[in-house]
Amino acid sequence: MSLDDAADSQRVLSIQSHVVFGYVGGKAAVFPLQCLGYDVDVVNTVNFSNHSGYGRSGGTKTTATELNSIFEGMETNELLMPTRLLTGYIPGAEALTAVAQLAQKLKATKEGLIYLLDPVMGDAGQLYVAADVIPVYKDLLPLATVITPNWFEVEYALLLTDTKLKDFPSLHTALRILHEKYHVPHVVISSIPLKPWLLAALPEHIKPDANSVDSNEHLLYRLRPSIVHAQCVPLIPGYFSGVGDLFSALLLARFHPTKPIVNGSSNPGTDIPNTIHQNTTTTDGILTPLTTPSTPSSSSFFSSTPLSIAASLALHKTHSILLLTHSSAQSLPYEERQPTDDELDALEPLRKTRRMRGRELALVRGQGIIRGDVKGQGRQLVFWDGFWDL
Amino acid sequence: MSLDDAADSQRVLSIQSHVVFGYVGGKAAVFPLQCLGYDVDVVNTVNFSNHSGYGRSGGTKTTATELNSIFEGMETNELLMPTRLLTGYIPGAEALTAVAQLAQKLKATKEGLIYLLDPVMGDAGQLYVAADVIPVYKDLLPLATVITPNWFEVEYALLLTDTKLKDFPSLHTALRILHEKYHVPHVVISSIPLKPWLLAALPEHIKPDANSVDSNEHLLYRLRPSIVHAQCVPLIPGYFSGVGDLFSALLLARFHPTKPIVNGSSNPGTDIPNTIHQNTTTTDGILTPLTTPSTPSSSSFFSSTPLSIAASLALHKTHSILLLTHSSAQSLPYEERQPTDDELDALEPLRKTRRMRGRELALVRGQGIIRGDVKGQGRQLVFWDGFWDL
Repeated sequence: MSLDDAADSQRVLSIQSHVVFGYVGGKAAVFPLQCLGYDVDVVNTVNFSNHSGYGRSGGTKTTATELNSIFEGMETNELLMPTRLLTGYIPGAEALTAVAQLAQKLKATKEGLIYLLDPVMGDAGQLYVAADVIPVYKDLLPLATVITPNWFEVEYALLLTDTKLKDFPSLHTALRILHEKYHVPHVVISSIPLKPWLLAALPEHIKPDANSVDSNEHLLYRLRPSIVHAQCVPLIPGYFSGVGDLFSALLLARFHPTKPIVNGSSNPGTDIPNTIHQNTTTTDGILTPLTTPSTPSSSSFFSSTPLSIAASLALHKTHSILLLTHSSAQSLPYEERQPTDDELDALEPLRKTRRMRGRELALVRGQGIIRGDVKGQGRQLVFWDGFWDL
Repeated sequence: MSLDDAADSQRVLSIQSHVVFGYVGGKAAVFPLQCLGYDVDVVNTVNFSNHSGYGRSGGTKTTATELNSIFEGMETNELLMPTRLLTGYIPGAEALTAVAQLAQKLKATKEGLIYLLDPVMGDAGQLYVAADVIPVYKDLLPLATVITPNWFEVEYALLLTDTKLKDFPSLHTALRILHEKYHVPHVVISSIPLKPWLLAALPEHIKPDANSVDSNEHLLYRLRPSIVHAQCVPLIPGYFSGVGDLFSALLLARFHPTKPIVNGSSNPGTDIPNTIHQNTTTTDGILTPLTTPSTPSSSSFFSSTPLSIAASLALHKTHSILLLTHSSAQSLPYEERQPTDDELDALEPLRKTRRMRGRELALVRGQGIIRGDVKGQGRQLVFWDGFWDL
C-alpha cells in the first residue's frame, strides 16, 4: 500500500454534512482522509438523503442540543483528541455556535492543532445557510489555521466590511482584513472566475493559453500576507457538487506547516533569490527553489511553501477526480446527462435529479488518484511575484 | 492501486449505527467496502459519540420517522439503486420495521439483490436492543441472502422456538429452522466458543492443537443446508468492538454467488469425490478441489463454495486487523490497557474508557490488509464432511 505521505497517527475531527447517497460534505472528505492514513472522527451536522442540488431531499438537520450532547459524550470519555479540525457545512447559527465553542476549547487546549475552516455558505450567488451564521463565522475566523472560501464566500463573508471584490485594491483590502483583522494566517481561495481585470494582471507564467481563455477558465489562488501563489485550471463544463469539500480535505491532509520540505529534484547548490526569501514573513516553511515546468523563461524560481505544496497536491487530485467524474458522466445514457435548463428542469424534476446523480464525484473509483498512486504530474501552484504591487 | 477483486461498480446500501469516534457499525463497515471498490450509501440508525462499551455516550437514535423521510427522499430522487443491502444495528422495533419495509421493497424490485442481514442483538449474554425487535427480525429473515449472527444471536433469535444450542441435535434443529422455516440460504455463525461437545466432534483437520485449546479458542462456522465449513481461530485476549461489523462487511464485499470460481492452483485433471459433489444442493458455486494446507493427510479435498471463499477472506482480514489492533494496544501506556475488572471499572469509569479507546480497531492503519495487499496466507474455511450425521 502506498500512503504517499504518512499521517503519523494523526487524527482529524470532521464536522460537516452527511448525505446517504453521493459525495458532498463528510462523504467527500472522510474517505480521502482515511485513504491518506488519518483516523477521522465524524460528526454529522445534517443527515440528508442527498445534497440540495437535487432540489428535493429527506432527512433532518442535527440540532445544537444534539451536537452538544455528542461533544459532551466525547469529552466525558476523553475522546476529544484530534490533531486537526475540519469544519464545513453547518446550516444554522445555533449549531455553528456549538461548533465554535468546541473549536475554542480545542484551540485552547490542544497545542499545535491545525484548524481548516471551510466557511461553506454558498456558491454561484446562491446562499446555502441562514444569514445569521455570518457573525458567528466572524468569531470563528481567528481560530482558523487555514480557510478555504470560494469567491462567493469571500465576498459574502466580507459583506459586513463593505468590500466588494472588483479590482486589485479591493482584493488587497479583503485579504488584509482576513489576515490582519481576523488573524487568519493562510487563505486559500478555492475557485474564482477569471474576470478581465484579473486576467490582464496575471504574470505570463500563470496566464492560460489565449485560446483557452474563452472557455471561461477558473483561477485558483493561494494567498498569504506576503506570498501569493496561483494557478489556472481549465473549466470542466457542468456543475459538480462536493468539489470544495474534497479539495479542503485533501489540502488539510497534506498541510504540514512545521515539516521541512524536501524536494528531490532541486539542486542543493542553487542560490535562492533573496527577494523571495525576504518576502516570507512567516516561519512555517523553508523556501525551496523549483523550476516552473511550463514557463522556464519568465520565472526560473518561485517559492514553494508548505501551503503551496499541500494546495498543489489537493488541486491536482481534485482536478483528476473531476476529470474522471466528467468522463464517466459522458458515457451515461442521454437522460442521465441532459444539460442544465431551468425551464425544462422545472417541468420534469427527475431530469435534474438524473443529471445530479450522474455527476456525483467518482471518489471510490478514483481512490488510486487520492492515494497518490499517480504522482509528479500535478499542477503546481506558482509564485506570483509582485501581486501586492498591483 | 490493487482492488483484489473489482466490485464492478456495485453499490451497497448500508443501514447501521454511526459513532463519531472509533470503529463499530458503519464506521467499521463503510471504509472497508469503499476500499474494496463499492460505492456505499450510508444510513445512520444512531448518531452517537462512541460505542456503548464505553459505558457513557452522547447523541441520539434516528427515529422511524427520520428514517422514512430519508428513504422517501431517496425514492423520490431515484436513488434507491443498491445491488447489495447490508443491515446491522437497528436499536428499536419501529426503526427496524421501517428498514424491513424498505428491504421488502428493494427485494421485490431489484432482481439479484444480495442482502446480508447481521441480526445485531447482543453478545456475550448482553442484549443491545429492545426485546420487541425479535418478531420483526423473524419477518426480515426470509428476505436475507446471508445472515451473520454470533452464537448469542443464534440462541436468542431462536428463543421463540425453544431451541437451546447444547448439542448437535439442537444445533441441527436450529440450522434447519433458519434454512427451512425462514428460508435463509446462507448462514454464517461468526464466532462461537469451543464447547466440549463441539470440540469432541470436530474433524481432525479442523481441530486446533491440543495445547492451544486451553486458551479458549473460538470456532468459526459456516453453514448451509448440506455443506458446512468451519475453522478454528486463536482467541485474542480482551474484548474488541466492531469485529462482527467488519467481518460482515468484508464477507458481503467478496460474496459472488453466481461468479464462477477460478482456482489457479488446482489441478484440472483431479477427480472431485462424488460424495462432495452430491452434497451440494445449491447452484451458486462450482466445486473446486483444494488441498488443505495444514492437514494433507486427513482430507485431501474439500469443497470450496462462493460463500466459503468470501468467508475465508473475511476471516483472514478480520483476524489480521485484530492482531494489528492487539499489538498496537499492547504498546500503549499502562493506563490505556488495564485489564477488565468490573469493580475497579465501577470505581473509576475512565479506567474502562481508556481501555476501550486503546482497543478501537486499527482499520485505517490496517487498510493494506483490507485491500488485500497481503494475500494467500488466509485461514481457509474447511469443509466439514459428516456434519449432518453427528
